[in-house]
Amino acid sequence: MRDVCRHVRSRFVTSFDCLTFLTDYGLEDGFVAACHGVAVRIAPAARIIDITHLVQPGDVRRGAAVLAQTVPYLPPAVHVAVVDPGVGTARRAVAVQAGESLLVGPDNGLLSWAVAALGGAERAAQLTNGELWLHPVSTTFHGRDIFMPVGARLAAGTELTAAGKEIAVAELVTLPAPTSRVYDGQAEGEVMSVDRFGNVQLSIPAAQIGRLGVGFGSPLIVRCGRRQLTIPYLETFAAVAPGEIVAFTDSAGLISLAVNAGDAAEQLGLPPGAHVRLSAAHQA
Amino acid sequence: MRDVCRHVRSRFVTSFDCLTFLTDYGLEDGFVAACHGVAVRIAPAARIIDITHLVQPGDVRRGAAVLAQTVPYLPPAVHVAVVDPGVGTARRAVAVQAGESLLVGPDNGLLSWAVAALGGAERAAQLTNGELWLHPVSTTFHGRDIFMPVGARLAAGTELTAAGKEIAVAELVTLPAPTSRVYDGQAEGEVMSVDRFGNVQLSIPAAQIGRLGVGFGSPLIVRCGRRQLTIPYLETFAAVAPGEIVAFTDSAGLISLAVNAGDAAEQLGLPPGAHVRLSAAHQA
Amino acid sequence: MRDVCRHVRSRFVTSFDCLTFLTDYGLEDGFVAACHGVAVRIAPAARIIDITHLVQPGDVRRGAAVLAQTVPYLPPAVHVAVVDPGVGTARRAVAVQAGESLLVGPDNGLLSWAVAALGGAERAAQLTNGELWLHPVSTTFHGRDIFMPVGARLAAGTELTAAGKEIAVAELVTLPAPTSRVYDGQAEGEVMSVDRFGNVQLSIPAAQIGRLGVGFGSPLIVRCGRRQLTIPYLETFAAVAPGEIVAFTDSAGLISLAVNAGDAAEQLGLPPGAHVRLSAAHQA
Repeated sequence: MRDVCRHVRSRFVTSFDCLTFLTDYGLEDGFVAACHGVAVRIAPAARIIDITHLVQPGDVRRGAAVLAQTVPYLPPAVHVAVVDPGVGTARRAVAVQAGESLLVGPDNGLLSWAVAALGGAERAAQLTNGELWLHPVSTTFHGRDIFMPVGARLAAGTELTAAGKEIAVAELVTLPAPTSRVYDGQAEGEVMSVDRFGNVQLSIPAAQIGRLGVGFGSPLIVRCGRRQLTIPYLETFAAVAPGEIVAFTDSAGLISLAVNAGDAAEQLGLPPGAHVRLSAAHQA
Repeated sequence: MRDVCRHVRSRFVTSFDCLTFLTDYGLEDGFVAACHGVAVRIAPAARIIDITHLVQPGDVRRGAAVLAQTVPYLPPAVHVAVVDPGVGTARRAVAVQAGESLLVGPDNGLLSWAVAALGGAERAAQLTNGELWLHPVSTTFHGRDIFMPVGARLAAGTELTAAGKEIAVAELVTLPAPTSRVYDGQAEGEVMSVDRFGNVQLSIPAAQIGRLGVGFGSPLIVRCGRRQLTIPYLETFAAVAPGEIVAFTDSAGLISLAVNAGDAAEQLGLPPGAHVRLSAAHQA
Repeated sequence: MRDVCRHVRSRFVTSFDCLTFLTDYGLEDGFVAACHGVAVRIAPAARIIDITHLVQPGDVRRGAAVLAQTVPYLPPAVHVAVVDPGVGTARRAVAVQAGESLLVGPDNGLLSWAVAALGGAERAAQLTNGELWLHPVSTTFHGRDIFMPVGARLAAGTELTAAGKEIAVAELVTLPAPTSRVYDGQAEGEVMSVDRFGNVQLSIPAAQIGRLGVGFGSPLIVRCGRRQLTIPYLETFAAVAPGEIVAFTDSAGLISLAVNAGDAAEQLGLPPGAHVRLSAAHQA
């Protein structure tokens, strides 16, 4: 029944109230505003939500992670995302339907984790219909000239099929999922991201360390390279004294390491991508 | 008459056009956007004004100062503010009515100066009604899961009393007001904040140094620890040559120290909280 | 015919759906939000687009460049811009009509390049009508107390002539246009700006180096002071390997120098204002 309803909805919904925007454009220039201007001229009724524009330049993986962790909390929308180190080269530009939303961006994996978070790709089109673009198209600012104009037209009711030729969803470029596995009494993963507070988010879901017999209040052994430390696993970083290290389940359901009122990434020397193993500390 | 009108208004106003948002979440992550998404789903008609999200992590006092100095210029609104180093611990979550606005946030003093700026607390509720929250509630992201959902519902017309049990306004946590006093021919205060331009805002209202006989054009002695310097008190920092130090009445009505086209906080070594004394320089 | 239509439109348009905002206020304080609040109270129906608030403090030239390169992509709007190192001194405050938009700000040249980009000034008024301002007017925050209140009233339908006494457009302060000339087989210009990616934008339009016989794929000699290097001129920075230097036509139609996946401004030591000469590298 639910599938039927969704099917019906996806066939007849012709516009979106909301358009979101994520890039690595920064906030010092007028790049983001130029894209907003393009959007407003095409879809004057849409609300625009900026997700972030401070992805490190060209860091597709970071952009993918922020997008995927944010979209579940956004309304059905056209999500335009541009972290595009290959702009102007042969990489494809695509629009993807996932759940009740559409995602628009370069086909370099940036959209892939968000597509998965929204339930997987249902349809996809390569952006080949230049009639929807802003001309003349620059070689280096496809956010302004291709992605946002197309996104705004989709928000205003243009059908996905009008954006270009349909492509098989299996052909879409996807980033490898962050590694995470349980073996030999250990949960192994990597640093997904470091947030403003210096909290170190691991690719290890809280459920996995539950399987190791670790619960709130249990001591946890953290191994990274040759280093090893034992820290408490608690409900929140604020449960330890300022300056102390703690593991907790973060707002995305993943294990994170924090220093209360401090910067865990700096203190532990754990940048994104670093490998980490967790295990239960069994008291003798 | 005015009180009557306000009373009537506060009883019958059932929704707000505007929702404002202040946090220490930063702009690199998707945290702010996730909260916007939650708000838009609940209160699609509300305009959201971001006050700032660059409060230094956990700096409740700085958040309180920015909020209090901004709310007088905002329309009647639900003001959601989250600088919450105690998230997930026993600190209360509250909603407070002050003037024609509602304020929502942790009960750690963050809201207190803004409440005072809006005329004082009239009613308050502890956020105990979990039906208004977003579930599952994370232990570390109450902005997304508690404060913003409640704020958005209040903006959409939910009564304050539905947010939770009423509490006495006298029980609300308040930050001590910034110290400022006149004695012995001196105005004594502290550094309230340092803005982007390096201007040093003191807790000393312009009216106080008027009582010391200091007017525009008068020389002013600034004492900080063992250091002492004599600078002019002028209408604006632009009245001195680039690189020169000046005292002026800032846009909040407080005495500020500036270096024209320079950074006074750096040059004078005056961080927030530093004690400063001002007095008239009497020519011999 | 087109001129007639514009004439008719400019006489009868009485309000704007959109208000844009560019300043050097930064994002750490509540300054931008206070201005938004003032705008929303006066023009509740207007959409506000923030262009940027991270212009370096007092850098009028940078503000002018960002504004001019962004306005062509924005809808007809009231553009409020405040980079105002002379706030509170005798510099005039003005509103200028250009094309279908109005620009409001200090008369220090900040608006001049955007006015030119919009087709030139048609009418201008000095902001002398204090009835449109927010009182009491501070000496240092005219964005909140003068520019935004006036801008919002213009957006809400107030006539330009009501803002103050008309002044001749020839009297408006203009910044000297960025230098750029072709002579002796070279195109000479200066660094306009450096964006977040470290791309170095020159004041040399792509058309000029075309006149030197340089096309995509041609080697280009870049001279700066005593240094000289030969780099390819290509369609996009992504056409070279990471770490390599390239010249390309940027999204504003100007020649820019980039290091793919790197920071050209840092690597080449080219700050804004630096003089650069380009010429064709003729193979022997």
